Amino acid sequence: MPKKQKIVDTHTKAPAILLSKTQMGNNIGASARAMANFRMNDLRLITPRCHWPENMDAYALAAGANTILDNAQTFNTISEAVADCHFVCATTARPRDLIKTICTPYEAALELQNHIDRGYKVAILFGSESKGLDNEALQHAHIVSMIPVNPDFASLNLAQAVLLMAYEWFKIKQVKTYGARRDKQLVDNTGLRMQGTQLANMQELENFFFRLEKEISMGNFFTTKEKEIIMKQKIRNLFMRANITEQEVRILFGVMTALKRSGSTFHE
Amino acid sequence: MPKKQKIVDTHTKAPAILLSKTQMGNNIGASARAMANFRMNDLRLITPRCHWPENMDAYALAAGANTILDNAQTFNTISEAVADCHFVCATTARPRDLIKTICTPYEAALELQNHIDRGYKVAILFGSESKGLDNEALQHAHIVSMIPVNPDFASLNLAQAVLLMAYEWFKIKQVKTYGARRDKQLVDNTGLRMQGTQLANMQELENFFFRLEKEISMGNFFTTKEKEIIMKQKIRNLFMRANITEQEVRILFGVMTALKRSGSTFHE
Repeated sequence: MPKKQKIVDTHTKAPAILLSKTQMGNNIGASARAMANFRMNDLRLITPRCHWPENMDAYALAAGANTILDNAQTFNTISEAVADCHFVCATTARPRDLIKTICTPYEAALELQNHIDRGYKVAILFGSESKGLDNEALQHAHIVSMIPVNPDFASLNLAQAVLLMAYEWFKIKQVKTYGARRDKQLVDNTGLRMQGTQLANMQELENFFFRLEKEISMGNFFTTKEKEIIMKQKIRNLFMRANITEQEVRILFGVMTALKRSGSTFHE
Repeated sequence: MPKKQKIVDTHTKAPAILLSKTQMGNNIGASARAMANFRMNDLRLITPRCHWPENMDAYALAAGANTILDNAQTFNTISEAVADCHFVCATTARPRDLIKTICTPYEAALELQNHIDRGYKVAILFGSESKGLDNEALQHAHIVSMIPVNPDFASLNLAQAVLLMAYEWFKIKQVKTYGARRDKQLVDNTGLRMQGTQLANMQELENFFFRLEKEISMGNFFTTKEKEIIMKQKIRNLFMRANITEQEVRILFGVMTALKRSGSTFHE
Protein backbone atom coordinates (compact mmCIF):
# COMPACT_ATOMS: atom_id res chain seq x y z
CA MET A 1 0.00 0.00 0.00
CA PRO A 2 1.33 3.44 -0.86
CA LYS A 3 2.02 5.80 1.98
CA LYS A 4 -0.89 8.16 2.43
CA GLN A 5 1.00 11.27 3.33
CA LYS A 6 3.25 11.31 0.28
CA ILE A 7 1.41 13.21 -2.38
CA VAL A 8 4.37 14.29 -4.47
CA ASP A 9 6.95 11.95 -5.87
CA THR A 10 9.86 14.21 -6.71
CA HIS A 11 11.57 11.43 -8.60
CA THR A 12 8.76 11.15 -11.08
CA LYS A 13 9.64 12.82 -14.32
CA ALA A 14 6.40 14.49 -15.15
CA PRO A 15 5.51 17.48 -17.30
CA ALA A 16 5.66 20.88 -15.63
CA ILE A 17 2.32 22.71 -15.61
CA LEU A 18 2.70 26.37 -16.65
CA LEU A 19 -0.17 28.74 -15.96
CA SER A 20 0.13 32.09 -17.65
CA LYS A 21 -1.70 35.17 -16.37
CA THR A 22 -4.14 33.17 -14.25
CA GLN A 23 -6.89 35.40 -12.90
CA MET A 24 -8.42 33.25 -10.18
CA GLY A 25 -6.65 31.70 -7.23
CA ASN A 26 -9.13 28.84 -7.02
CA ASN A 27 -8.12 27.77 -10.52
CA ILE A 28 -4.49 27.58 -9.40
CA GLY A 29 -5.58 25.51 -6.39
CA ALA A 30 -7.80 23.17 -8.41
CA SER A 31 -4.96 22.78 -10.94
CA ALA A 32 -2.58 21.78 -8.12
CA ARG A 33 -5.11 19.22 -6.93
CA ALA A 34 -5.45 17.79 -10.44
CA MET A 35 -1.64 17.65 -10.70
CA ALA A 36 -1.44 15.65 -7.47
CA ASN A 37 -4.20 13.34 -8.72
CA PHE A 38 -2.03 12.51 -11.71
CA ARG A 39 1.42 12.52 -10.16
CA MET A 40 2.69 15.88 -11.34
CA ASN A 41 4.43 18.35 -9.03
CA ASP A 42 6.19 21.09 -10.99
CA LEU A 43 3.84 24.10 -11.06
CA ARG A 44 5.06 27.34 -12.64
CA LEU A 45 3.12 30.59 -12.66
CA ILE A 46 3.79 33.31 -15.18
CA THR A 47 2.68 36.75 -13.94
CA PRO A 48 -0.42 35.54 -12.10
CA ARG A 49 -3.20 38.16 -12.23
CA CYS A 50 -4.45 37.17 -8.79
CA HIS A 51 -2.85 37.79 -5.43
CA TRP A 52 0.19 35.54 -5.16
CA PRO A 53 1.64 33.85 -3.09
CA GLU A 54 -0.52 33.08 -0.05
CA ASN A 55 -3.72 33.05 -2.00
CA MET A 56 -6.30 31.50 0.31
CA ASP A 57 -8.66 30.52 -2.53
CA ALA A 58 -5.86 28.50 -4.06
CA TYR A 59 -5.15 26.60 -0.86
CA ALA A 60 -8.85 26.00 -0.24
CA LEU A 61 -9.26 24.36 -3.63
CA ALA A 62 -5.98 22.43 -3.51
CA ALA A 63 -7.63 19.92 -1.13
CA GLY A 64 -4.32 19.02 0.44
CA ALA A 65 -1.98 19.43 -2.52
CA ASN A 66 -0.35 22.28 -0.62
CA THR A 67 3.21 21.18 -1.29
CA ILE A 68 2.67 21.85 -4.97
CA LEU A 69 1.47 25.40 -4.24
CA ASP A 70 4.28 25.99 -1.72
CA ASN A 71 6.87 24.97 -4.30
CA ALA A 72 5.29 26.76 -7.26
CA GLN A 73 7.78 29.02 -9.01
CA THR A 74 6.78 32.36 -10.46
CA PHE A 75 8.21 33.94 -13.61
CA ASN A 76 7.88 37.25 -15.40
CA THR A 77 7.85 35.81 -18.91
CA ILE A 78 7.03 32.55 -20.64
CA SER A 79 10.60 32.56 -22.02
CA GLU A 80 12.00 32.35 -18.50
CA ALA A 81 9.47 29.75 -17.41
CA VAL A 82 10.30 27.39 -20.27
CA ALA A 83 14.05 28.05 -20.34
CA ASP A 84 15.03 24.60 -19.00
CA CYS A 85 12.35 22.76 -21.01
CA HIS A 86 13.11 20.93 -24.24
CA PHE A 87 9.57 20.35 -25.41
CA VAL A 88 6.56 22.54 -24.78
CA CYS A 89 2.92 21.77 -25.48
CA ALA A 90 0.55 24.73 -25.48
CA THR A 91 -3.18 24.30 -25.03
CA THR A 92 -5.81 26.30 -26.81
CA ALA A 93 -9.58 26.30 -27.01
CA ARG A 94 -9.70 27.52 -30.56
CA PRO A 95 -7.30 27.44 -33.47
CA ARG A 96 -5.12 30.48 -34.09
CA ASP A 97 -3.73 31.74 -37.35
CA LEU A 98 -0.30 30.39 -36.52
CA ILE A 99 1.03 27.43 -38.41
CA LYS A 100 1.36 24.81 -35.72
CA THR A 101 0.77 21.12 -35.36
CA ILE A 102 -2.56 20.67 -33.56
CA CYS A 103 -3.08 17.44 -31.72
CA THR A 104 -5.52 15.77 -29.36
CA PRO A 105 -4.70 15.49 -25.65
CA TYR A 106 -3.85 11.83 -26.19
CA GLU A 107 -1.43 12.61 -28.99
CA ALA A 108 0.11 15.42 -26.97
CA ALA A 109 0.51 13.16 -23.93
CA LEU A 110 2.25 10.58 -26.07
CA GLU A 111 4.66 13.17 -27.46
CA LEU A 112 5.35 14.53 -23.98
CA GLN A 113 6.08 11.10 -22.54
CA ASN A 114 8.21 10.15 -25.54
CA HIS A 115 10.37 13.19 -24.81
CA ILE A 116 10.50 12.40 -21.09
CA ASP A 117 11.64 8.87 -21.94
CA ARG A 118 14.55 10.36 -23.87
CA GLY A 119 15.55 12.42 -20.83
CA TYR A 120 14.02 15.73 -21.84
CA LYS A 121 12.21 18.19 -19.60
CA VAL A 122 8.73 18.93 -20.90
CA ALA A 123 5.96 21.38 -20.06
CA ILE A 124 2.28 22.01 -20.74
CA LEU A 125 1.32 25.67 -21.05
CA PHE A 126 -2.12 27.12 -20.26
CA GLY A 127 -3.34 30.67 -20.81
CA SER A 128 -5.65 32.85 -18.78
CA GLU A 129 -9.29 32.07 -18.06
CA SER A 130 -10.66 34.84 -20.28
CA LYS A 131 -8.19 35.00 -23.13
CA GLY A 132 -6.24 31.76 -23.33
CA LEU A 133 -2.84 32.03 -24.99
CA ASP A 134 -2.07 34.67 -27.59
CA ASN A 135 0.15 34.19 -30.62
CA GLU A 136 3.15 35.57 -28.76
CA ALA A 137 2.70 32.86 -26.13
CA LEU A 138 2.10 30.11 -28.68
CA GLN A 139 5.43 30.73 -30.33
CA HIS A 140 7.10 29.16 -27.29
CA ALA A 141 5.38 25.85 -27.98
CA HIS A 142 6.42 22.94 -30.16
CA ILE A 143 2.92 21.56 -30.44
CA VAL A 144 -0.55 22.78 -29.61
CA SER A 145 -3.22 20.57 -28.09
CA MET A 146 -6.94 21.16 -28.41
CA ILE A 147 -9.35 19.32 -26.14
CA PRO A 148 -12.30 17.93 -28.11
CA VAL A 149 -15.51 19.46 -26.78
CA ASN A 150 -19.06 20.13 -27.84
CA PRO A 151 -18.65 23.09 -30.25
CA ASP A 152 -21.98 24.47 -29.02
CA PHE A 153 -20.63 24.72 -25.45
CA ALA A 154 -16.88 24.79 -25.67
CA SER A 155 -15.88 26.77 -22.60
CA LEU A 156 -13.78 24.49 -20.43
CA ASN A 157 -12.73 25.78 -17.05
CA LEU A 158 -8.95 26.29 -16.76
CA ALA A 159 -8.49 23.72 -14.00
CA GLN A 160 -10.63 21.23 -15.92
CA ALA A 161 -8.36 21.63 -18.92
CA VAL A 162 -5.36 20.99 -16.65
CA LEU A 163 -7.16 17.93 -15.28
CA LEU A 164 -7.85 16.46 -18.71
CA MET A 165 -4.29 17.00 -19.96
CA ALA A 166 -2.85 15.53 -16.73
CA TYR A 167 -5.24 12.57 -16.95
CA GLU A 168 -4.23 11.76 -20.51
CA TRP A 169 -0.57 11.99 -19.60
CA PHE A 170 -1.03 9.80 -16.51
CA LYS A 171 -2.72 7.09 -18.58
CA ILE A 172 0.16 7.06 -21.07
CA LYS A 173 2.65 7.00 -18.23
CA GLN A 174 0.86 4.04 -16.62
CA VAL A 175 0.77 2.16 -19.87
CA LYS A 176 4.47 2.77 -20.50
CA THR A 177 5.63 2.18 -16.92
CA TYR A 178 3.59 -0.84 -16.01
CA GLY A 179 3.09 -2.34 -19.44
CA ALA A 180 -0.63 -1.98 -18.98
CA ARG A 181 -2.50 -2.66 -22.12
CA ARG A 182 -3.40 0.37 -24.13
CA ASP A 183 -7.05 0.94 -23.37
CA LYS A 184 -8.74 -1.90 -25.18
CA GLN A 185 -9.10 -1.82 -28.92
CA LEU A 186 -12.07 -0.06 -30.36
CA VAL A 187 -14.27 -2.87 -31.61
CA ASP A 188 -17.78 -2.52 -32.88
CA ASN A 189 -20.42 -4.76 -31.49
CA THR A 190 -18.76 -5.80 -28.28
CA GLY A 191 -20.83 -6.82 -25.33
CA LEU A 192 -23.61 -9.29 -24.88
CA ARG A 193 -25.25 -10.55 -28.05
CA MET A 194 -28.83 -11.69 -27.99
CA GLN A 195 -31.24 -13.31 -30.40
CA GLY A 196 -34.79 -12.00 -30.70
CA THR A 197 -34.79 -10.33 -27.29
CA GLN A 198 -33.21 -7.40 -25.52
CA LEU A 199 -31.89 -6.47 -22.12
CA ALA A 200 -34.49 -6.22 -19.41
CA ASN A 201 -34.94 -2.72 -18.06
CA MET A 202 -34.52 -2.00 -14.38
CA GLN A 203 -38.26 -2.05 -13.68
CA GLU A 204 -38.55 -5.56 -15.05
CA LEU A 205 -35.56 -6.66 -13.02
CA GLU A 206 -36.98 -5.01 -9.93
CA ASN A 207 -40.21 -6.95 -10.37
CA PHE A 208 -38.21 -10.14 -10.55
CA PHE A 209 -36.09 -9.33 -7.50
CA PHE A 210 -39.17 -8.36 -5.53
CA ARG A 211 -40.92 -11.61 -6.36
CA LEU A 212 -37.82 -13.74 -5.73
CA GLU A 213 -37.11 -12.13 -2.37
CA LYS A 214 -40.72 -12.55 -1.32
CA GLU A 215 -40.72 -16.20 -2.30
CA ILE A 216 -37.46 -17.16 -0.63
CA SER A 217 -38.45 -15.16 2.43
CA MET A 218 -41.59 -17.26 2.65
CA GLY A 219 -39.33 -20.28 2.36
CA ASN A 220 -37.38 -19.03 5.40
CA PHE A 221 -34.26 -18.32 3.37
CA PHE A 222 -33.33 -15.36 5.54
CA THR A 223 -32.28 -16.26 9.07
CA THR A 224 -31.63 -12.81 10.54
CA LYS A 225 -32.58 -9.29 9.46
CA GLU A 226 -28.91 -8.43 9.04
CA LYS A 227 -28.16 -11.41 6.84
CA GLU A 228 -31.29 -10.68 4.84
CA ILE A 229 -29.89 -7.32 3.73
CA ILE A 230 -26.54 -8.77 2.77
CA MET A 231 -28.00 -11.80 1.03
CA LYS A 232 -30.40 -9.64 -0.98
CA GLN A 233 -27.45 -7.53 -2.14
CA LYS A 234 -25.48 -10.59 -3.11
CA ILE A 235 -28.37 -12.09 -5.03
CA ARG A 236 -29.21 -8.88 -6.85
CA ASN A 237 -25.57 -8.35 -7.61
CA LEU A 238 -25.24 -11.80 -9.10
CA PHE A 239 -28.13 -11.23 -11.49
CA MET A 240 -26.98 -7.72 -12.40
CA ARG A 241 -23.64 -9.12 -13.52
CA ALA A 242 -25.44 -11.47 -15.88
CA ASN A 243 -26.96 -8.73 -18.06
CA ILE A 244 -30.32 -10.43 -18.07
CA THR A 245 -32.66 -10.13 -21.03
CA GLU A 246 -36.43 -9.69 -21.09
CA GLN A 247 -36.77 -13.28 -22.18
CA GLU A 248 -34.60 -14.44 -19.32
CA VAL A 249 -36.71 -12.53 -16.81
CA ARG A 250 -39.72 -14.50 -18.06
CA ILE A 251 -37.69 -17.69 -17.81
CA LEU A 252 -36.69 -16.87 -14.26
CA PHE A 253 -40.30 -16.26 -13.30
CA GLY A 254 -41.06 -19.65 -14.78
CA VAL A 255 -38.19 -21.18 -12.83
CA MET A 256 -39.53 -19.76 -9.60
CA THR A 257 -43.02 -21.05 -10.28
CA ALA A 258 -41.64 -24.46 -11.19
CA LEU A 259 -39.57 -24.62 -8.03
CA LYS A 260 -42.59 -23.78 -5.90
CA ARG A 261 -44.69 -26.35 -7.73
CA SER A 262 -41.96 -28.89 -7.25
CA GLY A 263 -41.83 -28.07 -3.57
CA SER A 264 -45.58 -28.44 -3.10
CA THR A 265 -45.46 -31.86 -4.77
CA PHE A 266 -42.48 -32.83 -2.62
CA HIS A 267 -44.34 -32.03 0.56
CA GLU A 268 -47.46 -33.88 -0.42
CA MET B 1 -20.66 26.38 -38.13
CA PRO B 2 -22.73 25.15 -35.22
CA LYS B 3 -25.27 27.55 -33.73
CA LYS B 4 -23.82 29.17 -30.65
CA GLN B 5 -26.95 29.35 -28.56
CA LYS B 6 -27.82 25.69 -28.75
CA ILE B 7 -26.04 24.00 -25.89
CA VAL B 8 -28.24 20.94 -25.62
CA ASP B 9 -28.94 18.63 -28.49
CA THR B 10 -32.00 16.72 -27.36
CA HIS B 11 -31.68 14.35 -30.27
CA THR B 12 -28.30 13.14 -29.12
CA LYS B 13 -28.57 9.84 -27.37
CA ALA B 14 -26.18 10.37 -24.50
CA PRO B 15 -25.82 8.72 -21.12
CA ALA B 16 -27.88 10.19 -18.29
CA ILE B 17 -25.76 11.50 -15.40
CA LEU B 18 -27.12 10.36 -12.02
CA LEU B 19 -25.85 12.11 -8.91
CA SER B 20 -26.78 10.41 -5.66
CA LYS B 21 -26.89 12.29 -2.35
CA THR B 22 -24.81 15.20 -3.64
CA GLN B 23 -23.83 17.52 -0.80
CA MET B 24 -22.69 20.63 -2.63
CA GLY B 25 -24.65 22.67 -5.13
CA ASN B 26 -21.52 23.84 -6.89
CA ASN B 27 -20.69 20.22 -7.75
CA ILE B 28 -24.11 19.85 -9.37
CA GLY B 29 -23.46 23.06 -11.31
CA ALA B 30 -19.95 22.07 -12.38
CA SER B 31 -21.28 18.65 -13.41
CA ALA B 32 -23.93 20.30 -15.58
CA ARG B 33 -21.22 22.42 -17.19
CA ALA B 34 -19.12 19.31 -17.88
CA MET B 35 -22.19 17.60 -19.35
CA ALA B 36 -22.76 20.51 -21.73
CA ASN B 37 -19.08 20.44 -22.68
CA PHE B 38 -19.51 16.87 -23.81
CA ARG B 39 -23.01 16.94 -25.27
CA MET B 40 -24.96 15.32 -22.46
CA ASN B 41 -28.23 16.76 -21.16
CA ASP B 42 -30.08 14.24 -18.97
CA LEU B 43 -29.22 15.07 -15.35
CA ARG B 44 -30.94 13.14 -12.56
CA LEU B 45 -30.53 13.86 -8.86
CA ILE B 46 -31.26 11.26 -6.22
CA THR B 47 -32.10 12.82 -2.83
CA PRO B 48 -29.65 15.72 -3.11
CA ARG B 49 -28.26 16.66 0.31
CA CYS B 50 -28.07 20.33 -0.64
CA HIS B 51 -30.89 22.80 -1.14
CA TRP B 52 -32.69 21.88 -4.35
CA PRO B 53 -33.99 23.20 -6.71
CA GLU B 54 -32.99 26.86 -7.12
CA ASN B 55 -29.54 26.30 -5.70
CA MET B 56 -27.61 29.47 -6.55
CA ASP B 57 -24.20 27.78 -6.19
CA ALA B 58 -25.22 25.28 -8.83
CA TYR B 59 -26.26 27.98 -11.29
CA ALA B 60 -23.11 29.99 -10.60
CA LEU B 61 -20.89 27.04 -11.48
CA ALA B 62 -22.96 25.87 -14.44
CA ALA B 63 -21.47 28.72 -16.49
CA GLY B 64 -24.47 28.88 -18.77
CA ALA B 65 -25.53 25.24 -18.78
CA ASN B 66 -28.72 26.35 -17.03
CA THR B 67 -31.06 24.35 -19.24
CA ILE B 68 -29.54 21.15 -17.89
CA LEU B 69 -30.17 22.29 -14.30
CA ASP B 70 -33.67 23.51 -15.14
CA ASN B 71 -34.54 20.12 -16.63
CA ALA B 72 -32.83 18.00 -13.98
CA GLN B 73 -35.18 15.38 -12.53
CA THR B 74 -35.11 14.43 -8.86
CA PHE B 75 -35.81 10.99 -7.45
CA ASN B 76 -36.17 9.45 -4.01
CA THR B 77 -34.32 6.24 -4.81
CA ILE B 78 -31.74 4.98 -7.27
CA SER B 79 -34.28 2.34 -8.35
CA GLU B 80 -36.66 5.02 -9.55
CA ALA B 81 -33.89 7.02 -11.20
CA VAL B 82 -32.68 4.06 -13.27
CA ALA B 83 -36.09 2.49 -13.98
CA ASP B 84 -36.08 3.34 -17.70
CA CYS B 85 -32.36 2.56 -18.14
CA HIS B 86 -31.10 -0.68 -19.61
CA PHE B 87 -27.46 -0.36 -18.73
CA VAL B 88 -26.00 1.41 -15.72
CA CYS B 89 -22.35 2.18 -15.05
CA ALA B 90 -21.46 3.09 -11.47
CA THR B 91 -18.29 4.97 -10.61
CA THR B 92 -16.19 4.31 -7.56
CA ALA B 93 -12.90 5.58 -6.20
CA ARG B 94 -11.94 2.27 -4.65
CA PRO B 95 -12.94 -1.32 -5.31
CA ARG B 96 -15.62 -2.86 -3.12
CA ASP B 97 -16.04 -6.44 -2.09
CA LEU B 98 -18.79 -7.03 -4.60
CA ILE B 99 -18.25 -9.19 -7.65
CA LYS B 100 -18.51 -6.67 -10.43
CA THR B 101 -16.81 -5.99 -13.70
CA ILE B 102 -14.41 -3.12 -13.04
CA CYS B 103 -13.32 -1.19 -16.06
CA THR B 104 -11.43 1.92 -17.05
CA PRO B 105 -13.37 5.04 -18.07
CA TYR B 106 -12.49 4.28 -21.68
CA GLU B 107 -13.83 0.73 -21.46
CA ALA B 108 -16.94 1.96 -19.68
CA ALA B 109 -17.51 4.63 -22.33
CA LEU B 110 -17.22 2.01 -25.03
CA GLU B 111 -19.77 -0.25 -23.30
CA LEU B 112 -22.13 2.68 -22.81
CA GLN B 113 -21.94 3.74 -26.43
CA ASN B 114 -22.30 0.15 -27.65
CA HIS B 115 -25.55 -0.05 -25.72
CA ILE B 116 -26.70 3.33 -27.04
CA ASP B 117 -25.99 2.13 -30.57
CA ARG B 118 -28.34 -0.78 -29.98
CA GLY B 119 -31.12 1.57 -28.86
CA TYR B 120 -30.73 1.25 -25.10
CA LYS B 121 -30.96 3.99 -22.52
CA VAL B 122 -27.82 4.15 -20.39
CA ALA B 123 -26.72 5.99 -17.27
CA ILE B 124 -23.60 6.80 -15.28
CA LEU B 125 -24.09 6.86 -11.52
CA PHE B 126 -22.01 8.91 -9.07
CA GLY B 127 -22.12 8.85 -5.28
CA SER B 128 -21.77 11.61 -2.72
CA GLU B 129 -18.63 13.71 -2.23
CA SER B 130 -17.73 12.19 1.13
CA LYS B 131 -18.85 8.58 0.79
CA GLY B 132 -19.18 7.65 -2.86
CA LEU B 133 -21.55 4.80 -3.57
CA ASP B 134 -22.27 2.07 -1.04
CA ASN B 135 -22.93 -1.58 -1.86
CA GLU B 136 -26.66 -0.99 -1.86
CA ALA B 137 -26.16 1.60 -4.59
CA LEU B 138 -23.71 -0.51 -6.58
CA GLN B 139 -26.20 -3.31 -6.94
CA HIS B 140 -28.11 -1.15 -9.42
CA ALA B 141 -25.15 -1.10 -11.77
CA HIS B 142 -24.13 -3.49 -14.51
CA ILE B 143 -20.50 -2.39 -14.52
CA VAL B 144 -18.29 -0.27 -12.30
CA SER B 145 -15.73 2.19 -13.61
CA MET B 146 -12.68 3.33 -11.66
CA ILE B 147 -10.73 6.38 -12.80
CA PRO B 148 -6.98 5.72 -12.71
CA VAL B 149 -5.34 8.20 -10.33
CA ASN B 150 -2.22 8.59 -8.24
CA PRO B 151 -2.86 6.20 -5.33
CA ASP B 152 -1.03 8.63 -3.04
CA PHE B 153 -3.55 11.38 -3.82
CA ALA B 154 -6.67 9.69 -5.08
CA SER B 155 -9.41 12.12 -4.07
CA LEU B 156 -11.06 13.31 -7.25
CA ASN B 157 -13.65 16.03 -6.93
CA LEU B 158 -17.15 14.80 -7.89
CA ALA B 159 -17.56 17.20 -10.80
CA GLN B 160 -14.07 16.27 -12.05
CA ALA B 161 -15.08 12.61 -12.08
CA VAL B 162 -18.18 13.54 -14.07
CA LEU B 163 -15.96 15.55 -16.43
CA LEU B 164 -13.57 12.64 -17.05
CA MET B 165 -16.34 10.11 -17.66
CA ALA B 166 -18.16 12.53 -19.97
CA TYR B 167 -14.92 13.29 -21.82
CA GLU B 168 -14.17 9.61 -22.43
CA TRP B 169 -17.71 9.02 -23.66
CA PHE B 170 -17.58 12.06 -25.96
CA LYS B 171 -14.37 10.83 -27.55
CA ILE B 172 -15.89 7.40 -28.26
CA LYS B 173 -19.04 9.03 -29.60
CA GLN B 174 -17.03 11.25 -31.94
CA VAL B 175 -15.01 8.30 -33.16
CA LYS B 176 -18.12 6.23 -33.84
CA THR B 177 -20.24 9.03 -35.27
CA TYR B 178 -17.75 10.66 -37.54
CA GLY B 179 -15.63 7.63 -38.31
CA ALA B 180 -12.64 9.45 -36.94
CA ARG B 181 -9.72 7.23 -36.24
CA ARG B 182 -9.23 6.34 -32.58
CA ASP B 183 -8.09 9.45 -30.76
CA LYS B 184 -7.09 11.11 -34.01
CA GLN B 185 -9.16 13.76 -35.66
CA LEU B 186 -11.27 14.21 -32.55
CA VAL B 187 -10.86 17.87 -33.03
CA ASP B 188 -11.62 19.16 -36.50
CA ASN B 189 -8.74 19.10 -38.80
CA THR B 190 -5.89 18.04 -36.55
CA GLY B 191 -2.39 18.09 -37.84
CA LEU B 192 -0.72 21.14 -39.21
CA ARG B 193 -3.17 24.01 -39.40
CA MET B 194 -2.63 26.94 -41.71
CA GLN B 195 -4.57 30.05 -42.47
CA GLY B 196 -4.83 31.27 -46.04
CA THR B 197 -1.81 29.37 -47.21
CA GLN B 198 -0.75 25.81 -47.81
CA LEU B 199 2.32 23.64 -47.69
CA ALA B 200 4.94 24.62 -50.22
CA ASN B 201 5.35 22.06 -52.94
CA MET B 202 8.71 20.51 -53.61
CA GLN B 203 9.46 22.77 -56.56
CA GLU B 204 9.02 25.85 -54.36
CA LEU B 205 11.19 24.28 -51.71
CA GLU B 206 13.78 23.33 -54.27
CA ASN B 207 13.89 26.94 -55.50
CA PHE B 208 14.49 28.05 -51.98
CA PHE B 209 17.17 25.45 -51.27
CA PHE B 210 18.90 26.26 -54.55
CA ARG B 211 18.98 29.97 -53.78
CA LEU B 212 20.06 29.41 -50.17
CA GLU B 213 22.85 27.05 -51.15
CA LYS B 214 24.05 29.42 -53.84
CA GLU B 215 24.11 32.36 -51.43
CA ILE B 216 25.93 30.60 -48.60
CA SER B 217 28.33 29.07 -51.07
CA MET B 218 29.17 32.63 -52.20
CA GLY B 219 29.70 33.40 -48.52
CA ASN B 220 32.25 30.55 -48.34
CA PHE B 221 30.07 28.43 -46.10
CA PHE B 222 31.26 25.17 -47.63
CA THR B 223 34.90 24.31 -46.95
CA THR B 224 35.28 21.04 -48.84
CA LYS B 225 33.25 19.32 -51.54
CA GLU B 226 32.55 16.40 -49.20
CA LYS B 227 31.32 18.61 -46.39
CA GLU B 228 29.26 20.59 -48.87
CA ILE B 229 27.19 17.51 -49.67
CA ILE B 230 26.66 16.62 -46.03
CA MET B 231 25.88 20.17 -44.96
CA LYS B 232 23.37 20.60 -47.78
CA GLN B 233 21.63 17.44 -46.63
CA LYS B 234 21.52 18.66 -43.05
CA ILE B 235 20.11 22.04 -44.02
CA ARG B 236 17.48 20.60 -46.35
CA ASN B 237 16.55 18.07 -43.71
CA LEU B 238 16.07 20.74 -41.10
CA PHE B 239 13.67 22.72 -43.31
CA MET B 240 11.85 19.59 -44.45
CA ARG B 241 11.06 18.75 -40.86
CA ALA B 242 9.38 22.13 -40.44
CA ASN B 243 6.69 21.46 -43.10
CA ILE B 244 7.13 24.86 -44.63
CA THR B 245 4.24 26.68 -46.28
CA GLU B 246 4.18 28.71 -49.49
CA GLN B 247 3.96 31.88 -47.45
CA GLU B 248 6.94 30.86 -45.36
CA VAL B 249 9.01 30.21 -48.47
CA ARG B 250 8.38 33.82 -49.47
CA ILE B 251 9.33 34.93 -45.96
CA LEU B 252 12.57 32.95 -46.15
CA PHE B 253 13.47 34.55 -49.47
CA GLY B 254 12.92 37.89 -47.79
CA VAL B 255 15.10 36.85 -44.88
CA MET B 256 17.92 35.90 -47.23
CA THR B 257 17.69 39.18 -49.08
CA ALA B 258 17.68 41.12 -45.83
CA LEU B 259 20.70 39.23 -44.55
CA LYS B 260 22.59 39.98 -47.70
CA ARG B 261 21.61 43.63 -47.53
CA SER B 262 22.67 43.78 -43.92
CA GLY B 263 25.97 42.20 -44.87
CA SER B 264 26.62 44.65 -47.65
CA THR B 265 26.06 47.54 -45.24
CA PHE B 266 28.31 45.89 -42.71
CA HIS B 267 31.12 45.57 -45.21
CA GLU B 268 30.85 49.11 -46.45
